[in-house]
Amino acid sequence: MDDKSSSETRGNPIRCRAAVSRKPGEPLVIEEVMVAPPMAHEVRIRIICTSLCHSDITFWKLKDFPGIFPRILGHEAIGVVESVGEDVDEVSEGDTVIPTFMPDCGDCVDCRSKKSNLCSKLPFKVSPWMPRHETSRFTDLKGEVLYHFLFVSSFSEYTVVDVAHVTKIDPSIAPNRACLLSCGVSTGVGAAWRTANVEKGSTVVIFGLGSIGLAVAEGARLCGATKIIGVDLNPDKFENGKKFGVTDFVNSGNCGDKSVSQVINEMTDGGADYCFECVGMASLVHEAYACCRKGWGKTIVLGVDKPGSKLSLSSFEVLHSGKSLMGSLFGGLKAKSDIPILLKKYLDKELQLDEFVTHEVRFDDINKAFDLLIEGNCLRCVIWMDKQVSS
Amino acid sequence: MDDKSSSETRGNPIRCRAAVSRKPGEPLVIEEVMVAPPMAHEVRIRIICTSLCHSDITFWKLKDFPGIFPRILGHEAIGVVESVGEDVDEVSEGDTVIPTFMPDCGDCVDCRSKKSNLCSKLPFKVSPWMPRHETSRFTDLKGEVLYHFLFVSSFSEYTVVDVAHVTKIDPSIAPNRACLLSCGVSTGVGAAWRTANVEKGSTVVIFGLGSIGLAVAEGARLCGATKIIGVDLNPDKFENGKKFGVTDFVNSGNCGDKSVSQVINEMTDGGADYCFECVGMASLVHEAYACCRKGWGKTIVLGVDKPGSKLSLSSFEVLHSGKSLMGSLFGGLKAKSDIPILLKKYLDKELQLDEFVTHEVRFDDINKAFDLLIEGNCLRCVIWMDKQVSS
Repeated sequence: MDDKSSSETRGNPIRCRAAVSRKPGEPLVIEEVMVAPPMAHEVRIRIICTSLCHSDITFWKLKDFPGIFPRILGHEAIGVVESVGEDVDEVSEGDTVIPTFMPDCGDCVDCRSKKSNLCSKLPFKVSPWMPRHETSRFTDLKGEVLYHFLFVSSFSEYTVVDVAHVTKIDPSIAPNRACLLSCGVSTGVGAAWRTANVEKGSTVVIFGLGSIGLAVAEGARLCGATKIIGVDLNPDKFENGKKFGVTDFVNSGNCGDKSVSQVINEMTDGGADYCFECVGMASLVHEAYACCRKGWGKTIVLGVDKPGSKLSLSSFEVLHSGKSLMGSLFGGLKAKSDIPILLKKYLDKELQLDEFVTHEVRFDDINKAFDLLIEGNCLRCVIWMDKQVSS
Repeated sequence: MDDKSSSETRGNPIRCRAAVSRKPGEPLVIEEVMVAPPMAHEVRIRIICTSLCHSDITFWKLKDFPGIFPRILGHEAIGVVESVGEDVDEVSEGDTVIPTFMPDCGDCVDCRSKKSNLCSKLPFKVSPWMPRHETSRFTDLKGEVLYHFLFVSSFSEYTVVDVAHVTKIDPSIAPNRACLLSCGVSTGVGAAWRTANVEKGSTVVIFGLGSIGLAVAEGARLCGATKIIGVDLNPDKFENGKKFGVTDFVNSGNCGDKSVSQVINEMTDGGADYCFECVGMASLVHEAYACCRKGWGKTIVLGVDKPGSKLSLSSFEVLHSGKSLMGSLFGGLKAKSDIPILLKKYLDKELQLDEFVTHEVRFDDINKAFDLLIEGNCLRCVIWMDKQVSS
């Protein structure tokens, strides 16, 4: 986007196309919307491309709050800064940025700590608004408010994102690779790298070989894990998993008289060093915990189960096993410092991103991306926002 | 014990006095028993003194397995090696030793790892036998087998302990202090020091100000924690707690409309860095978890609840909070290397042990020690084995 274009739109509402989710589970409607200028600490971004994540589908289907409609979904993307609001020094018009659902204000006690990635200035929550001003920047042409999603709302040619949710990146990186670090791949790779801090030579078990699970495998492979066991009901996923470092496979539907944890304990001579639950079933966490090596095994929860679901662990086992349990949101990453590191690893051909992109569609075909992800043969479908804006 | 005495008893059964638990919950009976010579890898020890721990009371009351009778309870003690079995090089006759319920073989993958204190050669279990040979060394004068307890059975003038369960110590240390490191104080201090690795300047919450909870406070104080909040139903325990570094108190029965975690979150501006559950109620673990600081808070479970009890945590909270949960058995300590470090800290007047010993009784009055601990005003009651042996 050149300066002329920014100078035309800066400070004014932009009229552009967005894929609006008007009713739960119904196809998105591509329509023209108005995107207000960024307020203080906000950035308006022209989206280059966006990819579809399972959380989009979860919220698209959700009839009750935090499901809310009409809404602009999408939270995995890359774009170029069109204009910035007051008090934004960190990025400028024309910068290439990755928006993230997780903030990184850089200023609060959490953002300044090495131990936390949970910003306390703008604490993450599932909100339909902008994080700082608690209002929407989107309206439809009738003037009705359109709700935001995860502080990103990338299924629109333009969106407004708080500067704490924006990471400036090297513009030379292919956008249909870089956008994956906005959520899914970062979440999985980070869980192995930052949350679990997987040691070289260690053994890893991953429950669920979807894109998050495969990203965990990729992260574990990068960390030097030597045995990476995938657990899934679908044995076809093993072939795919091999590309990301999965060395062994357990079909959880075909363990005979044994539980998955019994099989894993035999395969690993007493349990794995790290177990990742990426399915999103609270009931699986106990099984993942049981797969861990006594003395030091770590169980890391990445999967999102229904609100209100409970994890249950044996009190005796927790006390006697020396194992630990932890969650990982956005892979424990701090967006602004860690995403550039991961992009560098991609450029250095250490981190694989290409293999995650199994499909690409035009923005007009966004509903096809939903179909593909639901069908289960798609890891990531990149949606290109080809059409230009009219302001 | 001099050589002459050893030379008289070595290789022969010893007839001595023991406090035998013959029926659940009934007073121990001091009677003469036979203590067989140590088998390979075993050590026969003359107990100098022993102290009473809540686990002794738990198993004393337990009608069903792993409660088993007649049994010689006691697992917190100090003594002198009377004789050794074959293949024992580590200790010799006359050495002062602390027996521990936790083994430290020094040889297996766990004992060689810095990350685990759960020996896999002689894995800890609740067994009525010696760990290696799965038999008893005790009989009564009618020839009936008396069961062991936690591989120590220190309520006897002589006992036999596997060498993996014995730590040689400096004989100059007062036995009625050193014996506390055999279980309770080590468990609490170690949980703060080794399991949680409490950082200087941090905030700690302890549920339950019994002797284990106070030992956690002592450990946290040693590690440099600046705020140590005790939670108990009995406000009298706060006065006592102050001696061990407890700086603040929350009466869990008197929080008004608020939950304990709400009160703690207000006191700590968002949660404590470490929370220790020392009560042994699985249902409290969720509350302890809720008291922890998001982003990095650790919840450490020390309390022993009933077999089969379950911990329940919100799946959402685990995923979104960045907190971790872990258990701590014997404080994560490796007996043979860590007990000498703690004893040195005692000699250097860093670690307090004196304050834990609230009562002392003669062996003949061992049942009084049970009464005292049950009444609740006793932290540790040391039982002195004054009477000498006849072989």
